[in-house]
Amino acid sequence: MTGRILREELEPGIVRVIVDNREKRNAISVAMWRELADTFRTLDADLGLRCVILRGAGDEAFGAGADISEFATTRANSVQARHYAEKVQEALRAVRHCRHPVIAAIRGLCVGGGLELAVCTDLRIAGAGSRFGIPVKRLGLTVAYDELEPLVELVGRGGAMRILLEGDLFGAEEALRMGLLTRVVADEQVDAAALESARRIAEGAPLVARWHKKFVNRLMDPRPLDESERAESYACFDTEDFRTGFRSFLQRTAPRFVGR
Amino acid sequence: MTGRILREELEPGIVRVIVDNREKRNAISVAMWRELADTFRTLDADLGLRCVILRGAGDEAFGAGADISEFATTRANSVQARHYAEKVQEALRAVRHCRHPVIAAIRGLCVGGGLELAVCTDLRIAGAGSRFGIPVKRLGLTVAYDELEPLVELVGRGGAMRILLEGDLFGAEEALRMGLLTRVVADEQVDAAALESARRIAEGAPLVARWHKKFVNRLMDPRPLDESERAESYACFDTEDFRTGFRSFLQRTAPRFVGR
Amino acid sequence: MTGRILREELEPGIVRVIVDNREKRNAISVAMWRELADTFRTLDADLGLRCVILRGAGDEAFGAGADISEFATTRANSVQARHYAEKVQEALRAVRHCRHPVIAAIRGLCVGGGLELAVCTDLRIAGAGSRFGIPVKRLGLTVAYDELEPLVELVGRGGAMRILLEGDLFGAEEALRMGLLTRVVADEQVDAAALESARRIAEGAPLVARWHKKFVNRLMDPRPLDESERAESYACFDTEDFRTGFRSFLQRTAPRFVGR
Repeated sequence: MTGRILREELEPGIVRVIVDNREKRNAISVAMWRELADTFRTLDADLGLRCVILRGAGDEAFGAGADISEFATTRANSVQARHYAEKVQEALRAVRHCRHPVIAAIRGLCVGGGLELAVCTDLRIAGAGSRFGIPVKRLGLTVAYDELEPLVELVGRGGAMRILLEGDLFGAEEALRMGLLTRVVADEQVDAAALESARRIAEGAPLVARWHKKFVNRLMDPRPLDESERAESYACFDTEDFRTGFRSFLQRTAPRFVGR
Repeated sequence: MTGRILREELEPGIVRVIVDNREKRNAISVAMWRELADTFRTLDADLGLRCVILRGAGDEAFGAGADISEFATTRANSVQARHYAEKVQEALRAVRHCRHPVIAAIRGLCVGGGLELAVCTDLRIAGAGSRFGIPVKRLGLTVAYDELEPLVELVGRGGAMRILLEGDLFGAEEALRMGLLTRVVADEQVDAAALESARRIAEGAPLVARWHKKFVNRLMDPRPLDESERAESYACFDTEDFRTGFRSFLQRTAPRFVGR
Repeated sequence: MTGRILREELEPGIVRVIVDNREKRNAISVAMWRELADTFRTLDADLGLRCVILRGAGDEAFGAGADISEFATTRANSVQARHYAEKVQEALRAVRHCRHPVIAAIRGLCVGGGLELAVCTDLRIAGAGSRFGIPVKRLGLTVAYDELEPLVELVGRGGAMRILLEGDLFGAEEALRMGLLTRVVADEQVDAAALESARRIAEGAPLVARWHKKFVNRLMDPRPLDESERAESYACFDTEDFRTGFRSFLQRTAPRFVGR
């Protein structure tokens, strides 16, 4: 039994994905990374969707990192490790580039691969008792560039050096100050706060959410924008949802967006 | 009546620019964006100037965003929207690249285009009761890349996703933590704090302030520096003001800089 | 007497470097910048080392900046200033690219060149009473691009504008919020906290610490990674220390890393 990825619809347009490997504090096996990638690719293709909440099973951990028991067969040398990393990075990219906003709802441990996963979501709402870190210096292994990059984007050189060199676990307040988290709430409020955030997102124009996610991610890439990318900045003004939003604003009514 | 841009000298070398459209909580019309661009280009050319303070009229708002009543004629489709954006972006660039330091003195609402404007200033001093946000997801429209970039520079991927996807208004403390603000003071202290900051800037060597503003902005661009840019790092050592500053330091007197 | 750079072994693998120019609050002369560069190049070559702590002599200052008394002969015009800057920048690069993690232990003043030096270390642990700033606008001189870049990496456009334009001194809490510091502790705890951090680093696999320092610094450069750099992400899996770390994890024993 290597754990699994569950999926449930919370409300129309809002899906919750659960990393479930409870006995191992939601450590993520290779099979689970694959399933995560598949799940998020499927969600990406679902145009009726407005927001995804990502969570660990139970209340002890968002994710405790890689499933180290597998390392003897999957990560025993640099060649294996690179294959392994490709699976992890595929899942991380699927989350990062899923067209829908993804909210991490974090309780308990958010460590190693679990933290790398959280860093690739768009909003991170964590309980006051949650704990963070990438203690791989104890295992004698490094975080690869492709997994390091999204971390450095959030916490900068200062935060990344602190997390990796000290290699200990730290609390939610420090994580918030570093820029790792969007918001800290009481542990028992994490699910409610994530759902509230998801509803707020789901009320807005869905194409706008998708464009904003895409635009912000694009600006992390130093290459200059091309003309078709610049033009996409204005595509929203030809949508039905823009006409709806504008009319609702003038009429002081609540808009009902359809994603067209 | 579409509002206007006012300008007054507070003290020798310190000018205050006021976005005045009080009935609409200082919403900024196309005509006002044009006037803002003209005003900041004129200020840029005034070599006697040392610092600009930018403020909304009254105490209710720094700026409440675009003047939405104009959209039916100015932003009704993607072609119009692009023309509209050019006007906005010209004003934002005029503020950003005005050679003099610009301080935003923020009371009340700082929302949408008002926030985009604040983000292009160099220092942002806000009242504890001020409120921030870019709630365009309700209108069904996106922030264009050129307006998004200065925001992402200040608040990173994490802050930008939070502001745009949730699309709500949030308070000064959260804005400070995100990196959106330089400083938060009591609401009734905003003008005094902005003036104090302006005086501090005005006491320093004006060429140094201009170079530092230029250098920091330049480093936001990932392209490598060329030789003439590197050389500019040392041009200050050939100025009269450097000789003044150095002599004053040794003599323990207050320097009087002339901007040469 | 122009001050000197001292070096002492605190514990096996942990060295402390002291900037000692006590009469001038540890102002750094050209001779001292040269000695700093030499010292860090020597430390870089010492493969038995695991961590370096950098400190000012006494408790009044980490470093008060350049030794201004030298300027008449070393920085009197742009040509001299560029030669001077080359010495400073060589020292800063030697700290930044020293293969071992470097912790700044900061008490008292951390100003001008002292702050530029701190910014090039990997972790900055400061006393609650320490004070920060780059008040060169009073001297009529600018910070050069190569010294500005590491500052902007840590504190962004917003922080750099605030530091340089206002040009005053500010406290540890503001420095922490800006991202300038890793941690603030009581003044009399700075040495203990720096040593604790160094020990934590020294317990981990030393090659991992060196790779992580190198990788994070590399990601500050916008140029794309090449194939050999990507491959280096996985080199750790062929080391003896990885096998040690993995075995110790499974056996629940404390790993003893050897740096191979």
